[in-house]
Amino acid sequence: MHDLHAVIMAGGSGTRFWPASRAARPKQFLPLSGGRPLIRATLERLQGLVPEGQVWIATNPVQARALPGVLPGFPSSQVLVEPEARDTAPCVALATAAIAARNPRATIAMLPADHVVAPVEAFQRMLRRGVAIAADQTSLVTFGIEPTFPATGYGYVECGELLDAVEPRAHSVRRFREKPDRATAAQFVAQFISQGTFLWNSGIFVWSVPAILAAMQLGNPDLGLAAEAMSEAMRRGDAAAVDAAFRRAPKISIDYAVMEKAQKVAVVRAGVQWDDVGSFPALERIAPKDPAGNATSLADGASFLQLQSRANIVYAEGRRTVALFGVDNLVVVAVGDAVLVCPKEQANELKALVEYVRAAGRSDLL
Amino acid sequence: MHDLHAVIMAGGSGTRFWPASRAARPKQFLPLSGGRPLIRATLERLQGLVPEGQVWIATNPVQARALPGVLPGFPSSQVLVEPEARDTAPCVALATAAIAARNPRATIAMLPADHVVAPVEAFQRMLRRGVAIAADQTSLVTFGIEPTFPATGYGYVECGELLDAVEPRAHSVRRFREKPDRATAAQFVAQFISQGTFLWNSGIFVWSVPAILAAMQLGNPDLGLAAEAMSEAMRRGDAAAVDAAFRRAPKISIDYAVMEKAQKVAVVRAGVQWDDVGSFPALERIAPKDPAGNATSLADGASFLQLQSRANIVYAEGRRTVALFGVDNLVVVAVGDAVLVCPKEQANELKALVEYVRAAGRSDLL
Repeated sequence: MHDLHAVIMAGGSGTRFWPASRAARPKQFLPLSGGRPLIRATLERLQGLVPEGQVWIATNPVQARALPGVLPGFPSSQVLVEPEARDTAPCVALATAAIAARNPRATIAMLPADHVVAPVEAFQRMLRRGVAIAADQTSLVTFGIEPTFPATGYGYVECGELLDAVEPRAHSVRRFREKPDRATAAQFVAQFISQGTFLWNSGIFVWSVPAILAAMQLGNPDLGLAAEAMSEAMRRGDAAAVDAAFRRAPKISIDYAVMEKAQKVAVVRAGVQWDDVGSFPALERIAPKDPAGNATSLADGASFLQLQSRANIVYAEGRRTVALFGVDNLVVVAVGDAVLVCPKEQANELKALVEYVRAAGRSDLL
Repeated sequence: MHDLHAVIMAGGSGTRFWPASRAARPKQFLPLSGGRPLIRATLERLQGLVPEGQVWIATNPVQARALPGVLPGFPSSQVLVEPEARDTAPCVALATAAIAARNPRATIAMLPADHVVAPVEAFQRMLRRGVAIAADQTSLVTFGIEPTFPATGYGYVECGELLDAVEPRAHSVRRFREKPDRATAAQFVAQFISQGTFLWNSGIFVWSVPAILAAMQLGNPDLGLAAEAMSEAMRRGDAAAVDAAFRRAPKISIDYAVMEKAQKVAVVRAGVQWDDVGSFPALERIAPKDPAGNATSLADGASFLQLQSRANIVYAEGRRTVALFGVDNLVVVAVGDAVLVCPKEQANELKALVEYVRAAGRSDLL
């Protein structure tokens, strides 16, 4: 699709994967996609859909420096460096400015770098459908995942009327719903089963340059101004001014700033397996399991053996063996110079440990 | 003491410390004595008591090759290589033959390489007392540890009459008692508390060359013959014949073959802290603990941090950090290319895991 650009958003740090993830090694660099780094899998999913020269990666300065190690050969001219972490809205503004400079009517797909999505064919089909909808140069398109459990960690999209008879199906968006409590999540999933109303918000978007610029002006005028300033600075080739405009942009997510206020939003019901790989317990969904239910993510020569051990999650990299003997429901991580052991049900609280590591003066481990 | 020789018995493999211990790295090579290898601490405990040229190490061929890495500068002429594992009696015969060739009336202290004993002064005092008793050239001397709990993993010595008024106290041995069941062990400890009758058998011995040779002839004539054959072959400088005689010696412990049948055995009540460091749980007795009761043995740059974790045992070597988050009563080991996690109460069964590792075709890890 010759006027389609893609922006891989790779700004996250992923403290919930410590000690596998570190400051210069965020979640999207981890070999969580069948042994490949998530970001590389995200890039490869675009092959044949987006011309190579029109794929961008938006990331922070530290990760930008580490990128060649994970994606050798990716052109640095297609790396958009966010001078500071300001959530997703300024990232979208920066990417829009960069792409508009090439093609002011381009279509843009915005994609998180650190999700697992499969199969590729279904992913590309859903993206093509979004591109077709966005071709009106006014619609914003989001992608909704069919929920498989009452997740409280995801936002939901409430579907409105069906747009047309084309497959995959697309609806107008009635409403975005933030991460629900458990009871509400159960209700959402029940309504999905009975009427198909609620879908998980995948965080993937498609829109045209004119549509997103108009939606920014409408939803958050400060953001719109920042986007204009970035475009203007880019036309002058003034990198310092681009950075300055980025730093002035409101620190807010694109969902809050734009999506929830936009007038014409469509949701494509994405028939894909999708996981945001939020923390180690996600490995129970995306990684292979042995007959005793131990989920293992092993890369670069790591191996695993167990005796009398059930339902553990093991993540290891490098030539080393993790041996479990008579333990259940643990997360065991062995990467580089660190080993972590914690109960599975506590793995979502890893942030607390990371903060403790920092407070203990061991930032060298982060 | 110019006629005192010492033999450090370093034949054990220590599968109960896997993956810290490996085939070429037995328990006595592990830095379990305040960061120093146990065998080095054993050697250092003899300084000032036994002339350097009269300290011997008896070990197997694999460990003999690895010895210079742990004890740089130790003379290879003082290493006695046991051609195969045949328990302790042939080891004693070999050492006796080697020392008798130098001094047929020498006194010999036999010391396991892999125990923790402190303080040095008390250790040397007890050994001197043993040497004085053995000076009659007929007594065998063993050393009894004051029991602190009803151990079922140790043998016991039942004290007979007091030999004399000298300190530390020494008794004739009434009887050796094998590793007792729990009830018997409790009885032994109760009797120690009320009458001082039962002591732990430390596995340390002192005797003269004539006394041990006579006791071997009496207790196990085959062993006596093997010792004679080794002596004879050594006089001829025939290493192959020494090996052959060793291989023909009965495979038996010195306790069964000699001590339990000897006529004149004394036990010195050893006022030392002593631990045979039988498995990882021993670290709770000999290693430092944090306020949450986590016992840590860290060497060569290893570090430990924990949040909400209690009563764990952590063993790590090398520049790495073990982080525990919300776990209790685990053993966590990180050494070289392996990580082990198991519950504390299962750490004594590690042999089963080691056998499984072998059966799984991973002898490279052993």
